[in-house]
Amino acid sequence: MPVSEYRGKRRVQFYETDAAGIVHFSWFYRYMEEAEHALWREAGLSIHEPGSHIGWPRVAASFEFVRPLRFEDEFDVHVRIAAMTTRTIRYTCTIEKDGARIASGSMTIMCVRRDGEKMESAEFPHEIMTRLAPTSASILTEISNA
Amino acid sequence: MPVSEYRGKRRVQFYETDAAGIVHFSWFYRYMEEAEHALWREAGLSIHEPGSHIGWPRVAASFEFVRPLRFEDEFDVHVRIAAMTTRTIRYTCTIEKDGARIASGSMTIMCVRRDGEKMESAEFPHEIMTRLAPTSASILTEISNA
Amino acid sequence: MPVSEYRGKRRVQFYETDAAGIVHFSWFYRYMEEAEHALWREAGLSIHEPGSHIGWPRVAASFEFVRPLRFEDEFDVHVRIAAMTTRTIRYTCTIEKDGARIASGSMTIMCVRRDGEKMESAEFPHEIMTRLAPTSASILTEISNA
Amino acid sequence: MPVSEYRGKRRVQFYETDAAGIVHFSWFYRYMEEAEHALWREAGLSIHEPGSHIGWPRVAASFEFVRPLRFEDEFDVHVRIAAMTTRTIRYTCTIEKDGARIASGSMTIMCVRRDGEKMESAEFPHEIMTRLAPTSASILTEISNA
Repeated sequence: MPVSEYRGKRRVQFYETDAAGIVHFSWFYRYMEEAEHALWREAGLSIHEPGSHIGWPRVAASFEFVRPLRFEDEFDVHVRIAAMTTRTIRYTCTIEKDGARIASGSMTIMCVRRDGEKMESAEFPHEIMTRLAPTSASILTEISNA
Repeated sequence: MPVSEYRGKRRVQFYETDAAGIVHFSWFYRYMEEAEHALWREAGLSIHEPGSHIGWPRVAASFEFVRPLRFEDEFDVHVRIAAMTTRTIRYTCTIEKDGARIASGSMTIMCVRRDGEKMESAEFPHEIMTRLAPTSASILTEISNA
Repeated sequence: MPVSEYRGKRRVQFYETDAAGIVHFSWFYRYMEEAEHALWREAGLSIHEPGSHIGWPRVAASFEFVRPLRFEDEFDVHVRIAAMTTRTIRYTCTIEKDGARIASGSMTIMCVRRDGEKMESAEFPHEIMTRLAPTSASILTEISNA
Repeated sequence: MPVSEYRGKRRVQFYETDAAGIVHFSWFYRYMEEAEHALWREAGLSIHEPGSHIGWPRVAASFEFVRPLRFEDEFDVHVRIAAMTTRTIRYTCTIEKDGARIASGSMTIMCVRRDGEKMESAEFPHEIMTRLAPTSASILTEISNA
């Protein structure tokens, strides 16, 4: 069964807070990426294989912030594959604390083949296509929008 | 004269790179914020006054990534005030290296009054309205879109 | 029973790696601090209480690095209270992977009373003295060194 | 003339502060490393050449913290080569603000040859020995200690 989503729990670390007493907004992009990599591990994949010439740079990432997180808060990260082509994956992500929305984000990544410092867009290795898939909710949304 | 934009130069630090050999995408949000704070300083303002009950949390932030940055690369950050209400500011940001586009972002911040852990949306202090203003290009765009 | 040590497991996140393909050394100080805060939580304490005027700045911190950590490595962090006065705590920390030493560190923190931006050395609140204590191994070492 | 030291100015960025309102201690190690890399650039060197099999992992790093830094503080970083062997460099570092000591640190790095994930201690490339040298003050200290 391909994997489509991942839910994880996380606690705010002190070095993630700033002088306003809340988590610095740059950390939410890292929380989203942590959950993405955990999703890949659940699918038996690593997004960064040692020695591989395949890479997955981020093409776009965004967040809307609703409520702050503070030191030692426990929160839930939920990341879903919203769409896939043969070369890109788009995720959506929600961050909640005690059931209340903290932030909502999305991120698009692309497959590249690296040769030294050169990167060229590439089709996914076949294995990826068999192990990752958009959530069915996402597929229904695509159809109803069509 | 109110300040509307800021251009700065920056060099990639080693701790900003990741195992893919490029700047980790979470750093671009920090580059954008650094330039925002420098814009405020040029306007004679600090975005975080010691002891102040006014704060400026981020409401949304996004980036599109076109090309990677690497260790020791020098790059240009250009941040502009694209729009202002009496409670929010929207910035746009471009990051370039040797004239080539690296990334484009935007960020919206909101003014809040803090009371302990409570934050409430607030109107800007008057001083802000006299010292910051959208770029004229942004104002023309707003008119032509109206 | 006062708490003297804490053992935790942790996985290397991608944003913790650098262009040399290994965890950037600055992260080890954060791993040590994460474990310190978990030790305090086990003792029913928080090192940063909202609204408190007591703080715990770091006075010194050091690490020796033996082997690198890489993306997705799982490792063990073990932090111990090596010594306590009425105003300072000294921790020692070892980081291991599969039983092999990765790094060894130590950190000394001090209790301060804050008044605005002023910080003054202060004696520990009584509660701290009842909930934290040096490891017995540490006490024996102190005696044999005396 | 080989290079022995580097002095730079730096301003505290917002994301470097924590909920205690001061720079998180983990940043000082990054400030020290930033100055080290600037020292190497002054000597016409890069500590991380693209495609090179030579690397410079940190063997040890420590800091003593005397006074805090806060958002937008400007400070001075001074890094010196205190000692060199044919395989290691030891730096000392002082961080000051308005002439007052903020922190003092030291860091030892080692030269390695990398082969995939393997790292082996190596002698410095000859170029390094001609471009970097301990400060004369450091050499005098070594002699007087001998």
